[in-house]
Amino acid sequence: MASFSCPVPYVVRCSIAKEGGDFNRQRYAKVNGGIIRSISEADLLSRSAKASRALIPSVAENGFVVKEDVRQKIPTKKQLVDPYRQGLIIEGGVGYRQTVVIRSYEVGPDKTATMESLMNLLQETALNHVWMSGLLSNGFGATHGMMKHNLIWVVSRMLVEVDHYPIWGEIVEIDTWVGASGKNGMRRDWLIRSQATGHVYARGTSTWVMMNQQTRRLSKMPEEVRAEISPWFIEKHAIKEDAYEKISKLDDKAKYMNSDLKPKRSDLDMNHHVNNVKYLRWMLETIPDHVLESQQLSSIILEYRRECGSSDIVQSLCEPEENGILRDVDMIEDSEISLLNGFSLASEILKGGGLLGSFDNGTLRYTHLLQIEGEAKNEEIMRGRTTWKKKVTTTIPFSTQ
Amino acid sequence: MASFSCPVPYVVRCSIAKEGGDFNRQRYAKVNGGIIRSISEADLLSRSAKASRALIPSVAENGFVVKEDVRQKIPTKKQLVDPYRQGLIIEGGVGYRQTVVIRSYEVGPDKTATMESLMNLLQETALNHVWMSGLLSNGFGATHGMMKHNLIWVVSRMLVEVDHYPIWGEIVEIDTWVGASGKNGMRRDWLIRSQATGHVYARGTSTWVMMNQQTRRLSKMPEEVRAEISPWFIEKHAIKEDAYEKISKLDDKAKYMNSDLKPKRSDLDMNHHVNNVKYLRWMLETIPDHVLESQQLSSIILEYRRECGSSDIVQSLCEPEENGILRDVDMIEDSEISLLNGFSLASEILKGGGLLGSFDNGTLRYTHLLQIEGEAKNEEIMRGRTTWKKKVTTTIPFSTQ
Repeated sequence: MASFSCPVPYVVRCSIAKEGGDFNRQRYAKVNGGIIRSISEADLLSRSAKASRALIPSVAENGFVVKEDVRQKIPTKKQLVDPYRQGLIIEGGVGYRQTVVIRSYEVGPDKTATMESLMNLLQETALNHVWMSGLLSNGFGATHGMMKHNLIWVVSRMLVEVDHYPIWGEIVEIDTWVGASGKNGMRRDWLIRSQATGHVYARGTSTWVMMNQQTRRLSKMPEEVRAEISPWFIEKHAIKEDAYEKISKLDDKAKYMNSDLKPKRSDLDMNHHVNNVKYLRWMLETIPDHVLESQQLSSIILEYRRECGSSDIVQSLCEPEENGILRDVDMIEDSEISLLNGFSLASEILKGGGLLGSFDNGTLRYTHLLQIEGEAKNEEIMRGRTTWKKKVTTTIPFSTQ
Repeated sequence: MASFSCPVPYVVRCSIAKEGGDFNRQRYAKVNGGIIRSISEADLLSRSAKASRALIPSVAENGFVVKEDVRQKIPTKKQLVDPYRQGLIIEGGVGYRQTVVIRSYEVGPDKTATMESLMNLLQETALNHVWMSGLLSNGFGATHGMMKHNLIWVVSRMLVEVDHYPIWGEIVEIDTWVGASGKNGMRRDWLIRSQATGHVYARGTSTWVMMNQQTRRLSKMPEEVRAEISPWFIEKHAIKEDAYEKISKLDDKAKYMNSDLKPKRSDLDMNHHVNNVKYLRWMLETIPDHVLESQQLSSIILEYRRECGSSDIVQSLCEPEENGILRDVDMIEDSEISLLNGFSLASEILKGGGLLGSFDNGTLRYTHLLQIEGEAKNEEIMRGRTTWKKKVTTTIPFSTQ
């Protein structure tokens, strides 16, 4: 075993001669913050020699295709650890934690992760949670029971608060778990934490309901599905809200408006919806440049009202609340809320908790509306609120906790 | 040690009480294709109890900020393995391999990874290669020597061939390595391989030169930089090209044209360039919908001519080559090539090898041009070529290699 340049607390060596395969595949392990190294220089040389052979035949040359399920390997029973996703089951067996490195293309010009990237990672960890549960059917997060009833998940509300954006190359841990939301809904929460210090960088909470894939109407939760998912529910909240603040509906007197926005093919996700991230972009593109440069997005609330199809033409409206003075902050009424194509959904699904907290004078807030430009009338896609605070430099000296 | 639902060939257990930390951090290991599990149910319960405590203080509440270098932990010497990036050094110590799971937001409506996502992963693995080398300075892939001379990398040409797009949840291995390209350039190649079968899904090659960050002019490679990077060069090619095919310059007679395209803030990368992926989107948005639906992008060539700033207005032109008949396929002349702001670059940097191969009648090819709409004249940003072939279903039965 060769020695390496940094301390190796514990060493395991192994190599596999994979039957029919071209390569020895060595694996490594992380233990005690140190590394179990499974690679010796001899291994490296032998691997290198093999890899340096004439070009490896490509799929096309062999004309082989492997079945989707063989390629995906979706677990059919609960898994506690996934080494490839760097995920593990936590919270006494019902929560999920994934270790993630912030990638170079997930950060903006200032080297910090964008809200878009964070929301992508929230989606990814949510799906990997279902993946690990053994409940995942072939759909986009749908369980076997949901597939049977032709149901898909739709998000009705999402709130993300970011205290600190991770930077390029930083390692974070994302925890996610689910709970009940009224009779027919599910809450999903997240915490994003610095892997190095354990400090919380961001928190998220969201509410999900089921929609029939054919009729595109919301559905009650079938008992069969409840039996699948309710054992995973816990009563833990990433964000403490006493009641929801109401987001008023903007009209064409809004200060900023971008019109004639068209979804592109590349904006559709596996459910053939316009992706969340596109909504977020449309919202943020109405924010003035000087704000984007000097401020950082500290929280975002998205309330989804209806689907947006690939042929819709969209308008993004935005209205600032000057000087951080709160406006339109009425409690949501405890009545029926019209959501998605006129389907009425008990507000209990949406009920949760409190105001976003108090605001400094320097805090900026914007109310947002995305709507489909209709001939007779416009149809709401989403209401939103963004809160912004002054950017802080990340390069001041380390201070101990 | 609790028993788990799937075979555990080898078990290591360990836990860390991290000094001053909130959590025990358990690590796991992959060995011989099996899994070294480091988590027992007792561990899980104890972890869960800790995680379920009252909410963990956030960064803002503590007012602490950690220095960038502490958060990034860029290695100052060569690393052979990175467990978080799932990366390791191969090719006798000079190449890099990273294992990657295709994420839910990296795939399109058909569940296969998009070309955009693949190009993002190529960028990511290239940077992680430099990261592991110990040469990375604080810039976007620049070495210490480059920083000293105020140099950044710019890509002058990129070719990606995809035989098979990985699907959501599929595990791939991406190999990357570098070689010399003429006197002042560097070639970087990639292979994307199925982790399960070892078959090659995609190949890439690219040519890079150095640019002065202030003057925005191309630079020779300083000897100090050559000394840093040349020990990493190898003579291995992911794609065999005998000579480059020339991409003709389109004019306003091109069949498809999208005008008035404006880069958004979110399109800028850490170098404050408009990101590659944005160029790709602008190119692909000119391709007719029926092609995007029935065909898959099997190869793409990008030839970069000049930078695009955030205030430029861009035009994307596209011209089909009907019936796959090759046009404009002249060998590139062995003369000086004008590149980026009039800087002349010896064509030897760009020289490499041959035609893309022969084409079936069903293959579609498009020539692309991105240019800045100027008052006096338009300035070329990029020429490109895309090749498309009929989509194949991924669900036909597994056939052995």
